[in-house]
Amino acid sequence: MEDVAELSPARARERFRAGERAPTAGWCRGWTQANLIAVPAALRYDLLLFAHHNPRACPVLDVGEPGAWSTALFGGDLRTDLPGYRLYRDGRPVADLGEVTAEWREDLVPFLIGCSFTFERALLAAGVPVRHLELGTNVPMYVTNVPCRSAGRLSGPLVVSMRPVPEELVGTAVEVSGRYPRVHGAPVHVGDPAGLGIGDLARPDFGDPAEVRAGEVPLFWACGVTPQAAVMASGVEYAIGHLPGHMAILDARDDDYRVG
Amino acid sequence: MEDVAELSPARARERFRAGERAPTAGWCRGWTQANLIAVPAALRYDLLLFAHHNPRACPVLDVGEPGAWSTALFGGDLRTDLPGYRLYRDGRPVADLGEVTAEWREDLVPFLIGCSFTFERALLAAGVPVRHLELGTNVPMYVTNVPCRSAGRLSGPLVVSMRPVPEELVGTAVEVSGRYPRVHGAPVHVGDPAGLGIGDLARPDFGDPAEVRAGEVPLFWACGVTPQAAVMASGVEYAIGHLPGHMAILDARDDDYRVG
Repeated sequence: MEDVAELSPARARERFRAGERAPTAGWCRGWTQANLIAVPAALRYDLLLFAHHNPRACPVLDVGEPGAWSTALFGGDLRTDLPGYRLYRDGRPVADLGEVTAEWREDLVPFLIGCSFTFERALLAAGVPVRHLELGTNVPMYVTNVPCRSAGRLSGPLVVSMRPVPEELVGTAVEVSGRYPRVHGAPVHVGDPAGLGIGDLARPDFGDPAEVRAGEVPLFWACGVTPQAAVMASGVEYAIGHLPGHMAILDARDDDYRVG
Repeated sequence: MEDVAELSPARARERFRAGERAPTAGWCRGWTQANLIAVPAALRYDLLLFAHHNPRACPVLDVGEPGAWSTALFGGDLRTDLPGYRLYRDGRPVADLGEVTAEWREDLVPFLIGCSFTFERALLAAGVPVRHLELGTNVPMYVTNVPCRSAGRLSGPLVVSMRPVPEELVGTAVEVSGRYPRVHGAPVHVGDPAGLGIGDLARPDFGDPAEVRAGEVPLFWACGVTPQAAVMASGVEYAIGHLPGHMAILDARDDDYRVG
């Protein structure tokens, strides 16, 4: 049986294209993962400006032409080669799908947004454990009460991912993730979830819970699901995102996004 | 007589609004300066994507709504409060103007792009002389043979500014300017101008010459005139830029753009 950590991006995409469904944390070690958000061309300026205004949450790694289903950094087929999709109409999620070939309108512009899975290998290498990798689950994600800076028709709240980190390793986790500013960088918040308006860590808005144990602190990173929250908050007529945690695996290396 | 280095942005803009014409290097010490490029709304996505693809040359500091003549960071009137403007039709510069109230079409979207004048105070503070400040002239700028990454209808060459630096201070100049990544950061090239396809330093494409003396090395920084070169290379139907070196002075501090 193949170890998913050892797969090439092309091989992982082949498995997803063949129908496999799984969160991608831990897949294709050393390769960059990305969030997908595809919006009608009429909204692409607003989305690009929203991303520019909110760079921690929405670092744009690549953008396709209208109707395109691949980009410079993603050699596969964006309509079939992710392990899960979420379709939105008028701001409401209306279907979770395994592929979106029929739904990929000709005016859709795909954006690939950085993902914090990209620095998890570096966290592990620095001795910082990653709970959802230990558990084999999806990372927990939460809609916060922190508003993003709006752009044109798009506004919405910041979404964050959470990893519990032992107290003595919080500094290391901040420093190591901070070396990857284009894939969310350092945490936006450390400690009390109430500071972000998160009521119950056991009930994430997306993904699976990850228990915070004694001696651990929850660390919150800006999350590339934020554009999907904006699609919902703004009532966007039509959009396709990845299913949270089920990422596009790019033909780019984690180290490409490391600085210093 | 007022020392232009000591003026507030509001006072400098008042003088420009009253008709004063001057390059702004050395004005309003400690305040951020910016390049202006205003394009029709139909082209704003291409321009924002061009800026995203070429962040060293085109760091976007602020963007206005269509037809707006101020932005969050520029409290004045963008149509009158710069000391010089250049009007383009079909990619050709057709007029240099002192104000552009009549030319400011309702569909124009103004972008403010970072300017390397912003780190000149830091260069001086680190003991790096700045020749064009000594001479009281405009900085020399050159169109290079380095292509930018294109975006939609926009393509064109990288434009650079040049400062001669004593050999023993090159490292300092690189390090100090590198702390300001959103206003062009470290040089893109050090030394032989032929490496950028620049034939004769004595004949800049914009601004004034600045002699490179014995024991000095020319340092080249990405320049926010690059979008104007793209307007020309791409035959854009209508655009308004600042007159090179005659910048918008923002209500933002140099230190706002310093990292580390």
